[in-house]
Amino acid sequence: MFSGAQISLYPMTDDFVGVITSALGALDPYRERLRIETDDISTLLVGPPEVLFPALRDLFTAAARTGVHCVLSAAISRGCPGEPDDAICQSAHFDGPLLPLAERQSTALSAVREAPMTDVFSVAQFSLYVMGRDRHMDEIYGCIEFLKASGQFESSKHFATKLSGDTGALFATLEQAFCSFGPPEGHVTIDLTVSANSPSAR
Amino acid sequence: MFSGAQISLYPMTDDFVGVITSALGALDPYRERLRIETDDISTLLVGPPEVLFPALRDLFTAAARTGVHCVLSAAISRGCPGEPDDAICQSAHFDGPLLPLAERQSTALSAVREAPMTDVFSVAQFSLYVMGRDRHMDEIYGCIEFLKASGQFESSKHFATKLSGDTGALFATLEQAFCSFGPPEGHVTIDLTVSANSPSAR
Repeated sequence: MFSGAQISLYPMTDDFVGVITSALGALDPYRERLRIETDDISTLLVGPPEVLFPALRDLFTAAARTGVHCVLSAAISRGCPGEPDDAICQSAHFDGPLLPLAERQSTALSAVREAPMTDVFSVAQFSLYVMGRDRHMDEIYGCIEFLKASGQFESSKHFATKLSGDTGALFATLEQAFCSFGPPEGHVTIDLTVSANSPSAR
Repeated sequence: MFSGAQISLYPMTDDFVGVITSALGALDPYRERLRIETDDISTLLVGPPEVLFPALRDLFTAAARTGVHCVLSAAISRGCPGEPDDAICQSAHFDGPLLPLAERQSTALSAVREAPMTDVFSVAQFSLYVMGRDRHMDEIYGCIEFLKASGQFESSKHFATKLSGDTGALFATLEQAFCSFGPPEGHVTIDLTVSANSPSAR
């Protein structure tokens, strides 16, 4: 299965190039396990979710620690039928058959409880899309139940769910949402926005 | 059918609040035909595609004209089964049955040719998701054929298609991609990034 993301980091400062360049160092521990390609609009990361989400967490945390209002935007995808398979994407998340929803929710919650903390507060908003199934909304609703129990749930919005909390727990929650809902071999995507240090009232 | 978007505007400058605030004036002509709600991470726009896409075009063009590197990010959705119907979303795009793909591509290309120009150059990247159909990739491939003929196609990337050109033609192309592929009553979404004035090499 092919998996990865097109990501962009937006620091709201005149020195956005400096913030991005210094935050990119946070990807160094992951470079051997990700294929990384950058152009003028986004950076492609190809690899399994258990590498991708921690890499995104560390990249965003590094940028947020500057204190600048920063946003990470990502189009995350797995199992797209139009993408070639790639050995670098081999993941332990998708072994075995699709387990009952309650069992997947319980495993996902355990993973979130064990997530490392970053001491950086963030807000995340995302939409989960499960393609190619007539009953795709069952998986979406099952995911929303998990999110409500995750400790990071903030609100349901039109088209999206909003989370907030420690950036470590947030990215663990996002990884579980991405991997535990929709069939293991399915085409599943996330449209993600993560924000820190916004001056707007919450 | 319910339709709209969660959008965010990211000006990469210390004065990001000033750029956003002044660009918001571009939404004034559309306010009676859109429901608009803002929080600390995004702004919800509820309304039909023929209002939504021109509103996004004018908002982004206003921000891009400052010369600052700006990005618009949007999660655009129609027909989500979890959303209530809303009279404000009434659209001429979805009257009648699903026409043959070639016919829809031809109509979409005509609409793009008639789009007003803005004289502002932008780059756009987006993913189109068609939910609840076993053969969703047929619609995606049909859309990509349209994009390649649109005059704005730049490249196919993993997970996304990249366009560039006049911002007026770009948003007309995006509106057609959103409305002409996937069934009229279907659940269709777009994960969109539009960028202007980036210092990165293209």
